[in-house]
Amino acid sequence: MGKGATTRQTILEHAAGVASAAGLEGLTIGSLATDLHLSKSGLFAHFRSKEALQQGVLDAAAAHFTAVVVRPALAQPRGRTRLRALFDRWLDWAKAEVAPGGCIFVAAAVELDDRPGPVRDHLVQLQLNWLDCIARVVRTAIAAGEFRPGTDPEQMAHDLYGIMLSYHHAARLLRDPLAEQRARRAFDALVRAATKG
Amino acid sequence: MGKGATTRQTILEHAAGVASAAGLEGLTIGSLATDLHLSKSGLFAHFRSKEALQQGVLDAAAAHFTAVVVRPALAQPRGRTRLRALFDRWLDWAKAEVAPGGCIFVAAAVELDDRPGPVRDHLVQLQLNWLDCIARVVRTAIAAGEFRPGTDPEQMAHDLYGIMLSYHHAARLLRDPLAEQRARRAFDALVRAATKG
Repeated sequence: MGKGATTRQTILEHAAGVASAAGLEGLTIGSLATDLHLSKSGLFAHFRSKEALQQGVLDAAAAHFTAVVVRPALAQPRGRTRLRALFDRWLDWAKAEVAPGGCIFVAAAVELDDRPGPVRDHLVQLQLNWLDCIARVVRTAIAAGEFRPGTDPEQMAHDLYGIMLSYHHAARLLRDPLAEQRARRAFDALVRAATKG
Repeated sequence: MGKGATTRQTILEHAAGVASAAGLEGLTIGSLATDLHLSKSGLFAHFRSKEALQQGVLDAAAAHFTAVVVRPALAQPRGRTRLRALFDRWLDWAKAEVAPGGCIFVAAAVELDDRPGPVRDHLVQLQLNWLDCIARVVRTAIAAGEFRPGTDPEQMAHDLYGIMLSYHHAARLLRDPLAEQRARRAFDALVRAATKG
C-alpha cells in the first residue's frame, strides 16, 4: 500500500471504532483529525464529506466481512455445508467483534433506519446484498436435494438474520452466557425444519 | 391526574420521542425545557438527573407495553392461544410504533449495550422481565400438553425476540413490504416445531 492508502486505512479503522460506539453520526472530521494527529485538510483530502467518510466506514467493514465470513464459506461445498460455514463464520465475526460498540451493521441499522439519505441507502444496499448472498446459498441446498423444494430462501435469510440479531442482543446487552448456545440451537432448528425428512 | 403528574407525563411522552430518534444520550434537560416551554428548574423538580429522566422514559414505555401487549394477552386462555396473543399484540406494537425512531427498547438496547451504569442495568432488568414473561407463557402451553415436554421455554423466548428484531430490521431499515408476513411465518414455524406431533 502507498502512503495515501495506508493513511486512508488508518482513518477508516479508527473511524469504525468511533462509529460502533458513538454512531456514524458521532463521526466528525475534526475529532478524527485530533485523535489521529492529522490536519483537517489532510483528512478532507481522503474524504470530501462526512457522508463519504460514513460510507467509507461501511464499505471497509463490508470488505472485511466478505474476507473473513463470505469468501471462506463460499469455498465450502455447496448446500447445507456451505450454509453452516456461513453461519459459523458469521457467529465468529459477532463474537470476535473488537469494536467497542459491537457489530457496526447492527448499530448502523438502528441508527440510520429513520435518517433518509445516501448513507442510509448505501447501508440498505449492503444489507440486501448480504441477505441475497444467504438466500443464494440456501438455493444451493435446495438444488442439492438437501432442503425441501418448498423452502423459501428469502424467508430463511430473514430468519437467519433474526438469529444473529438475537445473539447480539443476548450476548452484548444481557451478557447471557448461553447466547452462543441459543444461537446455535436456533440455527439447527431452522436447518432441521428445511431438511428433507 | 394532578397538575404535577400531568406535566411529568407530558415530559416523558416528549422525551420518549426524542430518545427513540436521538438515543437516550440525546436527551438533555436543557433542550427538553426549551421544547416544552418549561423552566430548567421546573424540569429538575420532576427528574433530579439525566439518569432519572432516562429511566423514567424506559419505565413509561414499559408501562405502556404492559398495558397494550402483556395484560390483554395474559387475559387470553393459557397455552398456545395466549402465546399467539402475546405475539400478535407485540407485532401490533412494533407496527403502530409512532415514535420517530421506532421501538425505544430496540434502539436503547443497541445504544446502551456498551455503556455500563444504572440506566443500562435498568434496561437489562426490563428486558429480562419481558423474556421471563414469554417463557412463563410457553410453560403454560407445555403444562396444557400442547407443546412437547422437551420444549425449552427460555430458548423459545430468545427465538421470539429474534423474530421481532428481524421484523424491526426488515420493516424499518429495509422497508420490506413482506416484513410482517415473514415475522408471522417465522412465528408459525416456531410454534409448529414445539407442537406435539
